[in-house]
Amino acid sequence: MPKKVIIIGAVALGPKVACRLRRIDPDAEITVIDRDSLISYGGCGIPYYVGGDVSDLEGLCSTSSHAVRDIEFFRTCKDISILSSVEATGINRRDKKLEVRHLEDDRKEELEYDKLVIATGSTPFRPPFPGSDLPDVFTISNLHSARTIKDKISKGLVEKAVVIGAGAIGIEMAEALADLWGVETTIIEMADQVLPAALGKNMARVVENQLITNGVKVMLSQKVEQINGDKESGVESVVTSEGAIPCDLVVLSAGIRPNTKFASDAGLAIGNSGALLVDRRMRTTDPDIYAGGDCIELRNLVSGENMTMPLGSLANRQGRIIATNINGGNSHFKGTVGTFCVKVFEIGVATAGLTSIQAKATGFDPVHSIVVQHDRAHFYPTAQLMYIKLIADKKSRQILGIEAVGAQGDAVKARVDAVAPLLAGGVEIDDICNLETGYAPPVASAMDIINNAGNTLDNIFEGMNKPIDVLDFIKEFKQGKTKVLDIRDYKEVKPLIDRYGDRWINIPQAELRERIDEIPTDESLCLLCNTGPRSYEAQIVLKNNGITNTKNIQGGYGMLIVIAPEFIYNS
Amino acid sequence: MPKKVIIIGAVALGPKVACRLRRIDPDAEITVIDRDSLISYGGCGIPYYVGGDVSDLEGLCSTSSHAVRDIEFFRTCKDISILSSVEATGINRRDKKLEVRHLEDDRKEELEYDKLVIATGSTPFRPPFPGSDLPDVFTISNLHSARTIKDKISKGLVEKAVVIGAGAIGIEMAEALADLWGVETTIIEMADQVLPAALGKNMARVVENQLITNGVKVMLSQKVEQINGDKESGVESVVTSEGAIPCDLVVLSAGIRPNTKFASDAGLAIGNSGALLVDRRMRTTDPDIYAGGDCIELRNLVSGENMTMPLGSLANRQGRIIATNINGGNSHFKGTVGTFCVKVFEIGVATAGLTSIQAKATGFDPVHSIVVQHDRAHFYPTAQLMYIKLIADKKSRQILGIEAVGAQGDAVKARVDAVAPLLAGGVEIDDICNLETGYAPPVASAMDIINNAGNTLDNIFEGMNKPIDVLDFIKEFKQGKTKVLDIRDYKEVKPLIDRYGDRWINIPQAELRERIDEIPTDESLCLLCNTGPRSYEAQIVLKNNGITNTKNIQGGYGMLIVIAPEFIYNS
Repeated sequence: MPKKVIIIGAVALGPKVACRLRRIDPDAEITVIDRDSLISYGGCGIPYYVGGDVSDLEGLCSTSSHAVRDIEFFRTCKDISILSSVEATGINRRDKKLEVRHLEDDRKEELEYDKLVIATGSTPFRPPFPGSDLPDVFTISNLHSARTIKDKISKGLVEKAVVIGAGAIGIEMAEALADLWGVETTIIEMADQVLPAALGKNMARVVENQLITNGVKVMLSQKVEQINGDKESGVESVVTSEGAIPCDLVVLSAGIRPNTKFASDAGLAIGNSGALLVDRRMRTTDPDIYAGGDCIELRNLVSGENMTMPLGSLANRQGRIIATNINGGNSHFKGTVGTFCVKVFEIGVATAGLTSIQAKATGFDPVHSIVVQHDRAHFYPTAQLMYIKLIADKKSRQILGIEAVGAQGDAVKARVDAVAPLLAGGVEIDDICNLETGYAPPVASAMDIINNAGNTLDNIFEGMNKPIDVLDFIKEFKQGKTKVLDIRDYKEVKPLIDRYGDRWINIPQAELRERIDEIPTDESLCLLCNTGPRSYEAQIVLKNNGITNTKNIQGGYGMLIVIAPEFIYNS
Repeated sequence: MPKKVIIIGAVALGPKVACRLRRIDPDAEITVIDRDSLISYGGCGIPYYVGGDVSDLEGLCSTSSHAVRDIEFFRTCKDISILSSVEATGINRRDKKLEVRHLEDDRKEELEYDKLVIATGSTPFRPPFPGSDLPDVFTISNLHSARTIKDKISKGLVEKAVVIGAGAIGIEMAEALADLWGVETTIIEMADQVLPAALGKNMARVVENQLITNGVKVMLSQKVEQINGDKESGVESVVTSEGAIPCDLVVLSAGIRPNTKFASDAGLAIGNSGALLVDRRMRTTDPDIYAGGDCIELRNLVSGENMTMPLGSLANRQGRIIATNINGGNSHFKGTVGTFCVKVFEIGVATAGLTSIQAKATGFDPVHSIVVQHDRAHFYPTAQLMYIKLIADKKSRQILGIEAVGAQGDAVKARVDAVAPLLAGGVEIDDICNLETGYAPPVASAMDIINNAGNTLDNIFEGMNKPIDVLDFIKEFKQGKTKVLDIRDYKEVKPLIDRYGDRWINIPQAELRERIDEIPTDESLCLLCNTGPRSYEAQIVLKNNGITNTKNIQGGYGMLIVIAPEFIYNS
């Protein structure tokens, strides 16, 4: 008897399960249902469709061979039956029947299954403030809203937009609106930084300034109170405690909620996030029902805690595993280390593991280095600065997380990807110092930034490098708690001496040893060089001469200029 | 008593040891000697200096803050004493004295040490054929030869050049000569492929065609018999068994020999390669003498065998470890997995681990996948094809090596770097299927090429995908042993039907199931699609219909066109 397999959801994981299963089980009766009429699309591509990088919607629904992945494609090429505009309404687990409703004619039906796969994904969260359901308040959830937004903009109907939420999707949408279309765009974020789930505050400031540089207004620590407008004319403004921001379009990117109600009604176990619990074989608490993608919880392999991780990449990998296991295999998905990428105008961001705040919340004692260095040999013409934060646990030296930002997204990704697969195994600082990644001048430095991130962290752990982050330094400096010893050349330092007077001391590195007596010994000193290594050396020279009340500004001037240009230039 | 430390060699590892040691031991008496007058340069940058990417020699001798790393710099900024033009001639180990000769006045001297570091590097090998010592026969060994070559070319004295050896340096030099300067350049290689130590033959062909496309002539399986010319007028031609190639300049890049004679004369143990043996703490067989860089053997962590690995990146990492250990620390260098990168005109190459040939020689039974896929979401405008070969051991499923080639060097490096750090630990195929690397459409596919390399290899191991490499396919096809079933659209296939007639069968994928009776069942069939996944599906459909004498052409048309364009187009 051929196995009856029903898959609920035909976007990412669902089709992957179906196609893989067809390849390994030619006889199975495979049915995929979806409540939408559009199926099997690259949802992560929506911002690039809106922003014009992908010219038409078909691009997101096509294979790399330019075949449109529609129902006919799945029938002829994949031998898979897809029922669209069909919604799952309940599961009769005892009789192994799925209850569905045909949305076009409201017809109800029961479908028998031997194995069921829940790939229902998630729904963007609409916060309950007044006006969040107005027309022109969009979530980035499916191709319909994507098409409506792009139509509206391309007809010139949008001059000003507000994006609520500075996570990845919010930032990608802000870029899409501002870059090609020149829409005056404001991002509003509740937290005091952009990308709060992915980056520490210093690194986030690099991203924030990239947004600002490209004309996006960023409002942090702001709670939206309501959206003004009416059903007829659409939105007028978004109101926060600081006032109203006029706009013609609002994008809500305030997180997601897993689509699991009918599954939890059927008694399948749900985690704290509302997403389904699955074992390593991707089975729910009913062994005949599998689940994957946005609607499940995964184990974070660094923190050990469960989390949702709504990424098409994880969904695809889980889909292959589910198909293998339905066919009697024994394939495992162990969890995630939360690897994450986003492009923000001219820079790339990549992270993996825990942020310092997440690490603390999990019970670790995080210590970090921030290094700034060229992404290839500094003498190579295309070299650009990269910024890496590496976090380890004070007691165990275990690496907990890495954050990287830089001008060349592939190069940023390369550094994080080299570390991410090691995180689950409890990699230590020394392993990063000696991490063997590819070297040639066009793609890396001989002592690459990733190794130096490890070396710097090692020096911090050994007590040889006493660091301070740029934002902390600025706070202390503004409070008059510290002076600066800047060891760059005079011509580089002069603008800051002009601005801050005798609180900004300059002794070039080469003169440091012979002019050591000029350095005040009774005050706190923050040490500055171009990117950090020389001020670290200076700190050692000072210490050897009895001057110990010093802190080395992590990332040096290279970090200062990208995250606090207003501190350097009079505005 | 301050510790007396002498370091022999002031290029990469030597200065790294000295600077790190100064930071952790302010009192040590550190002396670095070098027989050259030019010190502390990025030797790996020489091809980029010759090729014009780096405009002047100072670029290779400067820090990222534009300070020239000369003797004065080391004295003032690093508190390190450097003696240049001083050669080590012998070691009196009993009395712990280093015998040196001052090259400028031939003066001999003995220097006392507590700890000695040998960082003497290597010398390019000059094969013993007649003429290898003629003027204008250069090795890429130091800044002097680099300057001479660039002077000669920039004065218009070089119209034709021959590069002997198609390893990384040979290829980089060929690009340097041909690209900016338009020198008519020929590479001669003994092996039957370029980069024989790094790539399998199919992957090497991608690189070879990149060279050819950019005007470099590549002669493989050629042994140089002699170089014609005389001491006065320089070289005239390079003679192989196939004739003489006229030229004005020859670059010899035929491997290196470690500079260890004086060390082996002193009784320090030497491996089969002639390089020094060291333990994991980087100590030679004399515990007071450390060594690192090009002049030592490292353990290959995949094969378990010793090898030399002359890379500035490894030298720098070893340098830090040596300094730590001289200061009483206990830091380890475990070995190498041979991670390697090279840029070749418009493409990047990265590899790690063993090639199939090396794996076989070590006693493994290597099986591989070759996948061709876009390096980012296929709908993203900058997407380009990438080519990956993944190798695993048949019995254990252990990953043995990875080779990657593609248009965006950072993206190529990202894939290899994600796998390389795992190789030493015995990573398996399943781990690559689920490797969690960063995903966003501008930098990766949802099911990324690296995961698909794992998935494809898994399918091959499971017997579901029966592959054939492109070069093997071409051989069988030319011998009349196989026909082709091409499942792309007719308009894509027509040129090949025109050329190969009824030996090239076309049934588009969507029609395959209904036209299955048209397919010959009594002949060998090689299956072709754009890049491989669809012909893999076709292979399964055929198998389910009793047609089993098929092979799936790995990488499909995408691989065929880059490694055998002459097979497609009439030349």
